[in-house]
Amino acid sequence: MKNFMNEAIKLAKKACAQGEVPIGAVIVYDGKIISRGYNTRQTSQNAIKHAEIIAIEKACKKLGSWRLEDCEIFVTLEPCPMCAGAIANARIKTLHYGCKEQTSCDDLCEKILSSKRLNHTVEIIFEENYQEEISSLLSNFFKSKRQKNG
Amino acid sequence: MKNFMNEAIKLAKKACAQGEVPIGAVIVYDGKIISRGYNTRQTSQNAIKHAEIIAIEKACKKLGSWRLEDCEIFVTLEPCPMCAGAIANARIKTLHYGCKEQTSCDDLCEKILSSKRLNHTVEIIFEENYQEEISSLLSNFFKSKRQKNG
Repeated sequence: MKNFMNEAIKLAKKACAQGEVPIGAVIVYDGKIISRGYNTRQTSQNAIKHAEIIAIEKACKKLGSWRLEDCEIFVTLEPCPMCAGAIANARIKTLHYGCKEQTSCDDLCEKILSSKRLNHTVEIIFEENYQEEISSLLSNFFKSKRQKNG
Repeated sequence: MKNFMNEAIKLAKKACAQGEVPIGAVIVYDGKIISRGYNTRQTSQNAIKHAEIIAIEKACKKLGSWRLEDCEIFVTLEPCPMCAGAIANARIKTLHYGCKEQTSCDDLCEKILSSKRLNHTVEIIFEENYQEEISSLLSNFFKSKRQKNG
């Protein structure tokens, strides 16, 4: 499992190099990465273009189906409500994330993924070994942003 | 306000005519419709292509910004968690919806739109005058689907 989260971290670093909040995601099917995404909200000026959404759209295209039941997604950061909803809508089997979202005090991600709404629940795995690395990546990004702006 | 929800209903009917769950959305800026969307999940085989997402992406393109702070969205049906999250992420000012989501027993849409996560809350207006018309549109769609399949 280690390589998949490392791949997502590489994508987060790509986002960072483009001045985007560093978040990356990969989708795995049959033991292989079938799609990759990283946050491009600023460069695209599109509110939807989070890492997870980009990876899900590519995976649907690759498999020719909106149903990704046999897929797992590896994301660096705990998904926002939009992306958690997208993961559930795409019927993804398992979400792996490497860093807890600090600003989420209301457990929305978990509530969305375990909702009975869709007759589908997503297994959630927090890969805590990556917390420190990913958390530093994010806080360094915001620190350098503040320095530039301040 | 009447015309905007009627426009969303027209779009829902377009989706229906293509065999898609009938849901439509329009985004309004400065008193005018700047984007339209209807559900194309089946025809595109893309889990992300809900009416709201399509309308938001078009509005971002039109205004050249991921921030839609001065926009209102009119959707036929109470948004799913993905779309509620997208509406919040795009900082849309007001959500108008015309029909309550029957399968949502956990008020996720409201929780997502009123979350403190983004330092932005979306005003929610349920336009109950449309409930009956939209609810019939949806139930007739599912009834005819069952007849075809059964």
